[in-house]
Amino acid sequence: MALTERLLMGPGPSNPYPEVSAALARPMLGHLDPEFLALLDETCERLRRVFATGNRLTLPVSGTGSAGMEAALVNVVHPGDTGVVGVNGLFGERMAEVASRLGAEVVRVEAPWGEPLDPDALVGAHPSPAAIAFVHAETSTGVRNDVEPVTARKGGALVVLDTVTSLGGMEVDVDGWGVDVCYSGTQKCLGAPPGLAPFTLGPAAWERRTARPPSWYLDMGLIAGYVDGTGGRTYHHTAPVSMVFALHAALGVLLEEGLEQAWQRHEDCGRRLQAGLEALGLELLAPKDHRLAQLTTVLVPDDLPGAMTEADVRRALLERDGIEIGGGVGPLAGKTWRIGCLGHSARPANVTLLLAALAEVLER
Amino acid sequence: MALTERLLMGPGPSNPYPEVSAALARPMLGHLDPEFLALLDETCERLRRVFATGNRLTLPVSGTGSAGMEAALVNVVHPGDTGVVGVNGLFGERMAEVASRLGAEVVRVEAPWGEPLDPDALVGAHPSPAAIAFVHAETSTGVRNDVEPVTARKGGALVVLDTVTSLGGMEVDVDGWGVDVCYSGTQKCLGAPPGLAPFTLGPAAWERRTARPPSWYLDMGLIAGYVDGTGGRTYHHTAPVSMVFALHAALGVLLEEGLEQAWQRHEDCGRRLQAGLEALGLELLAPKDHRLAQLTTVLVPDDLPGAMTEADVRRALLERDGIEIGGGVGPLAGKTWRIGCLGHSARPANVTLLLAALAEVLER
Repeated sequence: MALTERLLMGPGPSNPYPEVSAALARPMLGHLDPEFLALLDETCERLRRVFATGNRLTLPVSGTGSAGMEAALVNVVHPGDTGVVGVNGLFGERMAEVASRLGAEVVRVEAPWGEPLDPDALVGAHPSPAAIAFVHAETSTGVRNDVEPVTARKGGALVVLDTVTSLGGMEVDVDGWGVDVCYSGTQKCLGAPPGLAPFTLGPAAWERRTARPPSWYLDMGLIAGYVDGTGGRTYHHTAPVSMVFALHAALGVLLEEGLEQAWQRHEDCGRRLQAGLEALGLELLAPKDHRLAQLTTVLVPDDLPGAMTEADVRRALLERDGIEIGGGVGPLAGKTWRIGCLGHSARPANVTLLLAALAEVLER
Repeated sequence: MALTERLLMGPGPSNPYPEVSAALARPMLGHLDPEFLALLDETCERLRRVFATGNRLTLPVSGTGSAGMEAALVNVVHPGDTGVVGVNGLFGERMAEVASRLGAEVVRVEAPWGEPLDPDALVGAHPSPAAIAFVHAETSTGVRNDVEPVTARKGGALVVLDTVTSLGGMEVDVDGWGVDVCYSGTQKCLGAPPGLAPFTLGPAAWERRTARPPSWYLDMGLIAGYVDGTGGRTYHHTAPVSMVFALHAALGVLLEEGLEQAWQRHEDCGRRLQAGLEALGLELLAPKDHRLAQLTTVLVPDDLPGAMTEADVRRALLERDGIEIGGGVGPLAGKTWRIGCLGHSARPANVTLLLAALAEVLER
């Protein structure tokens, strides 16, 4: 079968680092093999560095980023709990839905798609919520929500933070900020394929965790018995070995580059992309002071050439140049494109190529 | 980092087919890329052939086999439902636990670990259960549970069947037998890495599915909107692209060999292994008429050489010859070994090697 190469500049997956593709094909090891367990331990240690946390319970959840979201909520949301959820995009909406299915009384704090959440509104929405949950970097809008103004005033609430599109691409400081539960995905700024959810849960959340959550698969009380080698290795489920190899390699590349250097690379690429898009006369959705660098939402212009639709533009990029960018979702479907500079894809040459290709397709 | 090669003859993972390792390293595609969607469709079609089903809802769940179990139950178990669960090993036990967490009234039908379930007991345990759930091939004991004597008399119950260790290694006939919900894992007889759960759900189960299950991640009503291309492609979660590449390749190898030929290969390897173990004077746990070929449970003999423990024997095999076999679990921990002839690992030379190495370590 012919293998098609794509330059992935949508909202994820991004192109994996070459070291990651090589790691995927490593010879298989058993999930209880001492060598695999050592590699898993090292993966968790690398995740602690990337999350900036000392949390013992830091590990890759065996599912995609959305499984990380579910794992975060199912382990701390008790039926009847009040959960404040920030909703200013698809993934905040998803958090509200997941929490609601778990029996939480969800208090929604909304902002328009494209605007940041108001930290005061999140903190003031309820006098004593069990949890406050929101998204750091909204993949659906390209907006950054501020974390510290919320965590600094969280009171007795646990803060659950989605860092799917931020981890590895901009500062995330779980312990410094006081985030209690945090999860991410592997296919964005971490430069690995989709399939695992980096996850960390702190001592306060551990104390208040649900004893027997409805999900057995995502029950951290049980998973900890396998991943945390200090208490023996109790089999829970078979670890997705090849994906752990991939994440281990991706985190190795990231930490070798240096976290701050990687953040800067994402920042530089994203800002150059955004300047280039504006130079083409395109308008960006997110306000400048809360605009992500790694994920940019562009408004589709009214004057597309010929009878082109926005989907035609994406198809033209894909078919001629092999470049993937994303369409809009939810209320932004058909109205926006989403362009990522994520992980290994965040390279100057990729920005140059994309801007040139887009200018040509748009005849600008 | 040095790469260690193992011959994996435990209860899984098995060694992936070489075509699978190559597929893992394929260039990444976006989860909405037309090429990826075509490959996903083909993967689902291949799964239909392997499950022997026409079920439209046939797909890989984005998690390991245990996620498949949870997906199977969370989509059909309503709180308060009566669920009959067959328990004669770890995975039957797990089904009971998962169903119970979902609010089912679980009626346990037990058999001793190492013995098959009694189909009459399963069918007669309750006059009108919502579901009857059990394991086809118990990975913890090496015992086959008969399916048709249950499905033939299921009445109004949905039958939920675990085929984690049977699919691809022995006959599974979802439609012919009348199984309503069936799941498997990729790392056993299918010859792929762990990380996905092949899954199929029939029309009766679809009609009676839970409208809004507590798990958003595993909600088949939503997942169908992405996987089933006939109704458009509604984004749910990002598909684990590389793992789908791997499964697609593994199913290709399996179907090219031929399903019946692969079953026979598992049968031949397993029976030769079992004859060889008995020739070494070892005793097998499972009764002959319900003994799996692909997964053999051997009793640890009393007369291990020197001061060896059973774990020492496994370590000796691993460290000198790079061969992994499994230990026992639950009440069989320390008392049994589990030896798999699964997927690509089910080869005559591997059986020859394992028997020779074991004979040497055991000084028999």
